[in-house]
Amino acid sequence: MTKAYLLDGKAIAEETLGRVARETAALRARGVTPGLATVLVGEDPASQSYVASKGKAARACGFHSVQHTLPTTTDELDLLALVESLNADPTIHGILVQLPLPKTMNAARVLELIDPRKDVDGFHPVNVGLLSVGEMDRAIVPCTPAGSMIMLDKACAALGRTLAGAEAVVIGRSNIVGKPMAQLLLQRHCTVTIAHSRTRDLAAVARRADVLVAAVGQPEMVRGDWVKPGAIVIDVGINRVAGEGLDASGKPKTRLVGDVAYAEAAEVAGAITPVPGGVGRMTVAMLMANTLEAARRAAPAGE
Amino acid sequence: MTKAYLLDGKAIAEETLGRVARETAALRARGVTPGLATVLVGEDPASQSYVASKGKAARACGFHSVQHTLPTTTDELDLLALVESLNADPTIHGILVQLPLPKTMNAARVLELIDPRKDVDGFHPVNVGLLSVGEMDRAIVPCTPAGSMIMLDKACAALGRTLAGAEAVVIGRSNIVGKPMAQLLLQRHCTVTIAHSRTRDLAAVARRADVLVAAVGQPEMVRGDWVKPGAIVIDVGINRVAGEGLDASGKPKTRLVGDVAYAEAAEVAGAITPVPGGVGRMTVAMLMANTLEAARRAAPAGE
Repeated sequence: MTKAYLLDGKAIAEETLGRVARETAALRARGVTPGLATVLVGEDPASQSYVASKGKAARACGFHSVQHTLPTTTDELDLLALVESLNADPTIHGILVQLPLPKTMNAARVLELIDPRKDVDGFHPVNVGLLSVGEMDRAIVPCTPAGSMIMLDKACAALGRTLAGAEAVVIGRSNIVGKPMAQLLLQRHCTVTIAHSRTRDLAAVARRADVLVAAVGQPEMVRGDWVKPGAIVIDVGINRVAGEGLDASGKPKTRLVGDVAYAEAAEVAGAITPVPGGVGRMTVAMLMANTLEAARRAAPAGE
Repeated sequence: MTKAYLLDGKAIAEETLGRVARETAALRARGVTPGLATVLVGEDPASQSYVASKGKAARACGFHSVQHTLPTTTDELDLLALVESLNADPTIHGILVQLPLPKTMNAARVLELIDPRKDVDGFHPVNVGLLSVGEMDRAIVPCTPAGSMIMLDKACAALGRTLAGAEAVVIGRSNIVGKPMAQLLLQRHCTVTIAHSRTRDLAAVARRADVLVAAVGQPEMVRGDWVKPGAIVIDVGINRVAGEGLDASGKPKTRLVGDVAYAEAAEVAGAITPVPGGVGRMTVAMLMANTLEAARRAAPAGE
């Protein structure tokens, strides 16, 4: 068996961030500095870490970066007022409200108040709709599917493939990955199947795929014999499972695995993303790309 | 071969209109009369006929019905002002701007100015987005796919089938039929494939389908041997083709056919919609259902 071409998320994310930094420098030379505001409510350690990494990446790209941290006890009206002030702030082009919000809050109401042009997560119904109808000059595309498409293009380039006419199967129908991924593949003229937990004989459906995207959150669900020989496999899942032995502090070790049984699939696939070090690496990079694009759209027309 | 169960669009549309009329009477008893405003720009005979039939159906349902007819030479700003006044008019719950608009106008700008809550065509990006994310309490679903789903439910009831887990194939990826149809089938837990002109071996993809929806605008493209035995076939196409002989005025006769070769497919399918007399009949009925629903949502909360 040939070994699959390995799609290196770290390298591709760095390439994307390098492009964003260069284009940001050019935009700043025209007097516009992209601005990203992150909003964190509460003290969830994972959320704190995500927000910190987004702020760090923004600064590395040359953005204006602002972080708003509010206590868990914040009144929803105060959060809404903050969003409105960021909507009105001409130095801010991207607003990221870190999820999850406290359960007392109506997250949909908060997210829908964000000006769609500043919704760099791409979750606002207006952006979902613009993606669906193909208004790509105005849509903002969610980061994970956008990053997956870049990796897919890398795979096509490496393997000499084209997406048009390919059979694509997306396993998972979430609003933030599965559905927008299907829209993007459809725009690239794939025949697109969306499969999910209710699909009969998921293995057989997966085996049709020239392009297989797994986004279900089930550790190693996609086995080697679900993969059509030569297929491009994009694994969006990031699952923490029990590892072997104990760590330095005496706790049982854990490790990260994807939705795809990597070792098996890599024997069959034409190209594959690893976990960790695959699609997950692209998410923050695409958030920066979205913020840059939002700033560019907001900027006065250039020469 | 068993003959397919015939899905009678006329009867199902009349049933839907009957329900809308009954529920409108109940809403009027609570002091709310659904209001539909149609806007026609220019003198295209087909458009005049469509708008007239929509107004007639609205009156038959017990709606308040208003038609605005503007000359082809209308300034776009005047049309935009009319839309804004209808947005602000509390007696109007549905606004239908008949397409096509004159080429001098930016149709997207006009349609996006319609308050999404009054967009009874379901074409506004906000409604497209709400449908995609599954916010069905707020989304307005485009009429043709919504009507197709009702016919599909009739077929399932007649054949003792369930949609969950079924393989659905939608041929065609238009914003007004193919894409929203795929979303609706996905919400009903079908495994959904969107196929189109770039699909390799369309016949083979179609033959996978337990539910086959044809929405491409190609006369009789789907042949009998594209249909899996027992499948439910929903034919959205309405194509005018040359008929046999001459009509009373001596012109060559024409006839309407669908995207499916009906006689062949009906020998294989479990249920099928004819053309004419199929899905096309449902469109105006669903427009009325959407207008009623918009009025209901706008009404003060009932007891």
